[in-house]
Amino acid sequence: MRTLVVAPHPDDEILGCGGTLLRRKAEGGTLGWLIVTGMTAEAGWPIDRIQQRNDEIKTVAGMIGFDEVFNLGLPPAGLDALPLGDLVSSFSEVFKSFAPEEVFVPHHGDVHSDHRVTFDVVAACAKWFRYPSVRRVLAYETVSETEFGLCREDAFHPNYFVDIEPYHERKLEIMGVYRSELGVFPFPRSVRAMRALAEWRGASAGYMAAEAFQLLRERQ
Amino acid sequence: MRTLVVAPHPDDEILGCGGTLLRRKAEGGTLGWLIVTGMTAEAGWPIDRIQQRNDEIKTVAGMIGFDEVFNLGLPPAGLDALPLGDLVSSFSEVFKSFAPEEVFVPHHGDVHSDHRVTFDVVAACAKWFRYPSVRRVLAYETVSETEFGLCREDAFHPNYFVDIEPYHERKLEIMGVYRSELGVFPFPRSVRAMRALAEWRGASAGYMAAEAFQLLRERQ
Amino acid sequence: MRTLVVAPHPDDEILGCGGTLLRRKAEGGTLGWLIVTGMTAEAGWPIDRIQQRNDEIKTVAGMIGFDEVFNLGLPPAGLDALPLGDLVSSFSEVFKSFAPEEVFVPHHGDVHSDHRVTFDVVAACAKWFRYPSVRRVLAYETVSETEFGLCREDAFHPNYFVDIEPYHERKLEIMGVYRSELGVFPFPRSVRAMRALAEWRGASAGYMAAEAFQLLRERQ
Amino acid sequence: MRTLVVAPHPDDEILGCGGTLLRRKAEGGTLGWLIVTGMTAEAGWPIDRIQQRNDEIKTVAGMIGFDEVFNLGLPPAGLDALPLGDLVSSFSEVFKSFAPEEVFVPHHGDVHSDHRVTFDVVAACAKWFRYPSVRRVLAYETVSETEFGLCREDAFHPNYFVDIEPYHERKLEIMGVYRSELGVFPFPRSVRAMRALAEWRGASAGYMAAEAFQLLRERQ
Amino acid sequence: MRTLVVAPHPDDEILGCGGTLLRRKAEGGTLGWLIVTGMTAEAGWPIDRIQQRNDEIKTVAGMIGFDEVFNLGLPPAGLDALPLGDLVSSFSEVFKSFAPEEVFVPHHGDVHSDHRVTFDVVAACAKWFRYPSVRRVLAYETVSETEFGLCREDAFHPNYFVDIEPYHERKLEIMGVYRSELGVFPFPRSVRAMRALAEWRGASAGYMAAEAFQLLRERQ
Amino acid sequence: MRTLVVAPHPDDEILGCGGTLLRRKAEGGTLGWLIVTGMTAEAGWPIDRIQQRNDEIKTVAGMIGFDEVFNLGLPPAGLDALPLGDLVSSFSEVFKSFAPEEVFVPHHGDVHSDHRVTFDVVAACAKWFRYPSVRRVLAYETVSETEFGLCREDAFHPNYFVDIEPYHERKLEIMGVYRSELGVFPFPRSVRAMRALAEWRGASAGYMAAEAFQLLRERQ
Repeated sequence: MRTLVVAPHPDDEILGCGGTLLRRKAEGGTLGWLIVTGMTAEAGWPIDRIQQRNDEIKTVAGMIGFDEVFNLGLPPAGLDALPLGDLVSSFSEVFKSFAPEEVFVPHHGDVHSDHRVTFDVVAACAKWFRYPSVRRVLAYETVSETEFGLCREDAFHPNYFVDIEPYHERKLEIMGVYRSELGVFPFPRSVRAMRALAEWRGASAGYMAAEAFQLLRERQ
Repeated sequence: MRTLVVAPHPDDEILGCGGTLLRRKAEGGTLGWLIVTGMTAEAGWPIDRIQQRNDEIKTVAGMIGFDEVFNLGLPPAGLDALPLGDLVSSFSEVFKSFAPEEVFVPHHGDVHSDHRVTFDVVAACAKWFRYPSVRRVLAYETVSETEFGLCREDAFHPNYFVDIEPYHERKLEIMGVYRSELGVFPFPRSVRAMRALAEWRGASAGYMAAEAFQLLRERQ
Repeated sequence: MRTLVVAPHPDDEILGCGGTLLRRKAEGGTLGWLIVTGMTAEAGWPIDRIQQRNDEIKTVAGMIGFDEVFNLGLPPAGLDALPLGDLVSSFSEVFKSFAPEEVFVPHHGDVHSDHRVTFDVVAACAKWFRYPSVRRVLAYETVSETEFGLCREDAFHPNYFVDIEPYHERKLEIMGVYRSELGVFPFPRSVRAMRALAEWRGASAGYMAAEAFQLLRERQ
Repeated sequence: MRTLVVAPHPDDEILGCGGTLLRRKAEGGTLGWLIVTGMTAEAGWPIDRIQQRNDEIKTVAGMIGFDEVFNLGLPPAGLDALPLGDLVSSFSEVFKSFAPEEVFVPHHGDVHSDHRVTFDVVAACAKWFRYPSVRRVLAYETVSETEFGLCREDAFHPNYFVDIEPYHERKLEIMGVYRSELGVFPFPRSVRAMRALAEWRGASAGYMAAEAFQLLRERQ
Repeated sequence: MRTLVVAPHPDDEILGCGGTLLRRKAEGGTLGWLIVTGMTAEAGWPIDRIQQRNDEIKTVAGMIGFDEVFNLGLPPAGLDALPLGDLVSSFSEVFKSFAPEEVFVPHHGDVHSDHRVTFDVVAACAKWFRYPSVRRVLAYETVSETEFGLCREDAFHPNYFVDIEPYHERKLEIMGVYRSELGVFPFPRSVRAMRALAEWRGASAGYMAAEAFQLLRERQ
Repeated sequence: MRTLVVAPHPDDEILGCGGTLLRRKAEGGTLGWLIVTGMTAEAGWPIDRIQQRNDEIKTVAGMIGFDEVFNLGLPPAGLDALPLGDLVSSFSEVFKSFAPEEVFVPHHGDVHSDHRVTFDVVAACAKWFRYPSVRRVLAYETVSETEFGLCREDAFHPNYFVDIEPYHERKLEIMGVYRSELGVFPFPRSVRAMRALAEWRGASAGYMAAEAFQLLRERQ
């Protein structure tokens, strides 16, 4: 199985489906990571912050076992200001090159506009006659974004649960790489909140820890 | 894979997922058929009509290759008048006995009340801690019921497509067993309408013929 | 504030809003408990089971500090078989007698039919010109029911969060009274799952532990 | 145009579409009135109350100009306790006999269970191959029921507006026949509330007074 | 009847409502065609491709019998990058000039961003006090866009069906003008897929072939 | 209570929650007004029109009793063309400076893109860990925008009603300051339409006049 996770920002892939990625890898899968935005010098990020982020990405890629990393380097919190057509072109190249069978995307109801735009772009890349490799598209939930949607239409109502018990502690460990993104509970991006969510999803599916998704499209 | 199809009335299983059942069988699966309603002498059905229906069921069971058939014999168009608790008990026995991993159910938005009630009963049988065998629940569309829901909430929005090209003609042939249920196009339960739907769903998923479903729950 | 919780079965009130009830009490509120179903000898429950349940109710009533308990004693898993009009009459008397300002009800998307019916009955009792005391109606989530709704329309999308940090441990302790309803994690009705949910809802609202609700109607 | 209004209780037809009925009549249409429930001596209604109600029906039928009145006389607030199959049979006869092209039904999200059940029954009577006369089905809003739905799914979101300016005063006058159903504003079934709604719907559509509907199905 | 179809790209008008347009024309209607995007030399399209497209538009205009064609020539796959206010101004002029009574628009849930933006712009042009000529707005489904929406909120749930039997073959013939857009089944923009859809919609409404729409607003 | 109303254009705050603002003030609250767009000389507005608008704002601020007014002066009908990140920054400063507990925002389904964008920006400012002062977010309805949403998902389904009887006439008087925005009934922004809506919402909640809202989030 060739699995591609689309992450608006580094850390979304761990928060959303880190355990499932570890499991796919353990099951012999090939993993791709499409990072949509990134810090750049042009956009005024300090060099050392950029360097640190690059190191984090390298470390996480190694710990998860990503086979390919695609880094678009677009401006964080700025995707809505880019022409959608350009974004589709960029994603398209990755989809053609990596040829994923399974794709993980952010939830369309996430509060962050980067997540919403990313969803829209992937939707345009989910047509079978354009990207015939794609067999399954799943939306993940991103702690600190998905649960803050204000409209009922934004609700994340999972219908697909993956047992991540053997990978859960490792997932939390990897999340620790993104030190600067983590805070102290009840801050949502905290180990304790992540653990609570994994257990809550686990209780819904019969596992000690689970990740939950919305299946958007599968064809077999 | 142990697959159970829940059919409010005989023929729903063919209309909704006849091709997929044939495919599961060809792939080595074990098939169960839970028929919820049936004609009975007590309810005033003529003996020869009952006999004919029983023959149809036997013939279809053989053509599909069902390994087990569960016939509850409840009154057609009468499920809403039965206590839901009793229905859950009846279904529960079948679920415990057959121990399905995959379950096919009617769509919750179907116009026919037997379909809606059947959906509600299966929902009560989809909790992992009661029926741990169940791993996947899919809602099928029933020509002549699903497309007649009047509310937007009733919309069938498929997210799971199965390639049935090698089984499509056989599916139509089996449907022919239910001679009395079929009519002349544009009557919905006609070979031509069924073929149009299979091609339309196929075009949505990249297959010459497909059946479309809504994934309600999967855990793996 | 006069607060009434409507519980299809004893324990729903604790699972759904036990912490909030303790808080209301601590803030000087008056609490009512409408228990819809109950075990009866007529329905074949053994005497000692009935006695045990009655003891549990008495104990819980004391620990929460309910000022009034209304026990309709209707058959569990049997509400759908009763005429809705009769149910409305029964509820109506309680609403007129207790005159609640705030009402807690199960979520309309819960899997259990008793929960769905209870919701419908309360909806009929939420009209201002029939029950002018009612100012606020909130739907609670019931672990083991609310998260098992199969349709997107069933999603519980909370918009109202209550800080229950000072009352959380006491809530779990009171839940322990219903010994027979509790199981071992990942069973949903377990202390660990309840704790996970409370922390997850807390992270969504900035509290160490929270209960989450859907506000259905408020008038002020 | 043959127009049939389905009224769970007498007065729903005026509240929901009295102005449109008057307009249809003025335009040369043929009008049918299907009254689902009624007061009966068997159900314990006093004779004089029954007589008064019958008089009201007769008066309203004359004032609107109904060409046919179908009175099923089923128990008010009791439709949910009847087998849906029986209800479909009763409605079916009326649909076959009157052969409506246009049908007005209550909204599926109304709080009153009689309204919800009536909706479900009409939905079963909207299949073209069973009732080929039916060309258009519209849901009306019933003051005091439609605006009290507690779920977002219950929302009445009109997409079809009818100018009733020339008929508005007459509609209010006819509503006056149901003296016992009317109250004093802000009671919803009051002349002032009805007027406010008609003006509000009018402002949405460019008319001095309008009735608003949800088109459920049209075929032409 | 003055009917305006708004097509993000030439061919959407045929796919979505070609049969209905032919029928409106046959019934004596006046037809307008608002083409939103177009190939331009500035945007780098080769001259002969532009010429071919212009010829196609001319041919189709003749075959349908459009009385007026409005060609905005905006960049394909680029509408989201334009200020919505400018788009509203452009559409506004067409609406004022053509003064349509009936308007056909793409579905808001289509995957293509040009379709979504077009929908939003037309929504802004559907207010009665700005464009009093508009009496009816219908959303059409565009094969290869509408069925690829990934969210349940994107579902196309038709409530308005038009019998296009006498015009169906002609519609397919006209679609042939857009040779480069067509492919081989199961490609969605193929004659066979279009035929399957027309028959499927026909079976839902009692016609040999039908086009299906969502009525968004009508006032009469 | 510190209450902030976010108004895409001056007059939205009166239309949407003018009565509630007057009531909050009367109850001792502190009121903030965030005006998102404004007329500027750079954008070509005539000086006297700008002056008049500024006078109107000053007058209304005095009549309502706003304690603070924040005027972003962004281009009307142009918010969608601005980078969302910039808008979030601008709003963020206001939220940090005013520290609102209660926030009133436009409905996400409003037709005007300025309203939709404003909603999205506020949603990003409703996270408790960024703006801990915020306890309650309510969406208001804006006559002439909210009722023109074409999709069912756009429906405004109020769940929170405020009695504004003592403030209703004053609200209408203040609206009169925006002379140029008002028209003659059935124009939606007319005193008569506003009165009809207030009475209609009142009838839904038991008040002579009411404003209706959708509660999006509350934490207590």
